[in-house]
Amino acid sequence: MTGIGRVVIVGAGQVGTMVGAALREAATACGISSIALYDSDWKVAETSASLGGGDRVLRDPEAVLEADALVLAIPVGEIVAWLEEFGPRLRRGVLVLDTGSAKMEVVAAMAQFLPNFVRAVGGHPMVGSEASGPFAAVPGALRGAVFALCPCRSDEAALAAATQLVAACGARPLVVEAIDHDRIVARTSHLPHLVASALAITAVGVGEDLALAQSLAGSGYLGTTRLAASDAQMVAAFTSSNRSQLELALRSFRAQLDRLEAALADGPKALALELGKARAARAQVLGQL
Amino acid sequence: MTGIGRVVIVGAGQVGTMVGAALREAATACGISSIALYDSDWKVAETSASLGGGDRVLRDPEAVLEADALVLAIPVGEIVAWLEEFGPRLRRGVLVLDTGSAKMEVVAAMAQFLPNFVRAVGGHPMVGSEASGPFAAVPGALRGAVFALCPCRSDEAALAAATQLVAACGARPLVVEAIDHDRIVARTSHLPHLVASALAITAVGVGEDLALAQSLAGSGYLGTTRLAASDAQMVAAFTSSNRSQLELALRSFRAQLDRLEAALADGPKALALELGKARAARAQVLGQL
Repeated sequence: MTGIGRVVIVGAGQVGTMVGAALREAATACGISSIALYDSDWKVAETSASLGGGDRVLRDPEAVLEADALVLAIPVGEIVAWLEEFGPRLRRGVLVLDTGSAKMEVVAAMAQFLPNFVRAVGGHPMVGSEASGPFAAVPGALRGAVFALCPCRSDEAALAAATQLVAACGARPLVVEAIDHDRIVARTSHLPHLVASALAITAVGVGEDLALAQSLAGSGYLGTTRLAASDAQMVAAFTSSNRSQLELALRSFRAQLDRLEAALADGPKALALELGKARAARAQVLGQL
Repeated sequence: MTGIGRVVIVGAGQVGTMVGAALREAATACGISSIALYDSDWKVAETSASLGGGDRVLRDPEAVLEADALVLAIPVGEIVAWLEEFGPRLRRGVLVLDTGSAKMEVVAAMAQFLPNFVRAVGGHPMVGSEASGPFAAVPGALRGAVFALCPCRSDEAALAAATQLVAACGARPLVVEAIDHDRIVARTSHLPHLVASALAITAVGVGEDLALAQSLAGSGYLGTTRLAASDAQMVAAFTSSNRSQLELALRSFRAQLDRLEAALADGPKALALELGKARAARAQVLGQL
């Protein structure tokens, strides 16, 4: 396998900055000749570069077409728009990998707008917090993290190139079909985002209740609603992109909540039994069982 | 005001241990002559004492009647049972303070079972995690934390004594009527517990989905479901005790979730608007706005 060559990261926010910083560490070992950052707000790209997210900043959106490997670290809706605008003009053999957290729509847009000679793979690194922007990038967060890779079309060379880039980031590539990814992530991430937002707003009463809520809200509220502090546009983009799976997840969630409420009405014994099942389920998902 | 005297903590788990350890630090300054621990499992009390939760362990449940200040750090249902069994035999002027997270039922049981000459106040320290037992006690967690105090009957001496004990713990007393406490906490804590459990279980699919969920569940799932790892009996006890307020909170929560789902159907713009409101609500509750 040859070196990765010229990397261009489109979108210099939290994830773009983390990818760029991780690749810079591996640059010599992985044959990366440069890491350029492009952001529609060039000041964000400058900030990212100053934090180690890349070695230079591109001001011209057309300049990204010179890349050997492109990482699209922008919100899901913008990824699709970018693919439509720039995709048809990409050079032969270029790797295109994105970092959006909903994959079916992205992979479909890759198949639609990118020529067959472009190596396209949908990606989703399992890193990031509710914060946004380059300052929210946590150095080293990609090391050992799962980085989902969703094949766009049957293209072994594309998958190999994406795997090489992900490995250069220090992350663990996990090849998964986009539909499987979206079904699972609807339940482990997208649903929790909506639920956190619904919880956050439920706590706000009127008048004196707000002051009391401010005093009485503890670490439980803080943690359960943390995702509600995420960038609203970004969350709206990926949840909308994964709407049909998210609606199924919402249906399952409501059924589980109804079950818990029925147990609550049955009394503490019945409720403890159901809560115990949920505790075991969580331990299972987290690999503690 | 005279010294606090002999303190007995009933229940040597996470919260009992934190209260005992905090009081030990303040013992001399606050006229505390001893801090004894009683637990239905005496080994738990021994562990707590070895961690600094008290200076001695009581094996005889009747021995707790010798206290000048009693802290009931047991699950809500057990508090009520304890008050019924031991309350009528308490000595004149004894302070009885509990740490349960639902207050109306406890305060009503105090009024019912404790003689008027007992100083009874419902308490709820805003500390603690999903873990349980004395090892889960975090040293210093009470320092600066809000400690809700819910009057049981019009008794200034009781409130003064409870305030003195809470201040000795380094916590900030907040006097609030039990009904107001339970209405707010239903939304900021009890509802999040049920929701976290429902989310935890929704993520578990069948067969290969579990393995994928294990790989793809990230910090969002971890944080949003953390409360589901709490002790099921304890959560069942306080949520059942606060059932009517919790049912109202569940109704509000479902309405907020429906609203978000409707916005999801309307598209990313409408959804971002609703998510933005939730973000602002959370910032307001956390005092960041």
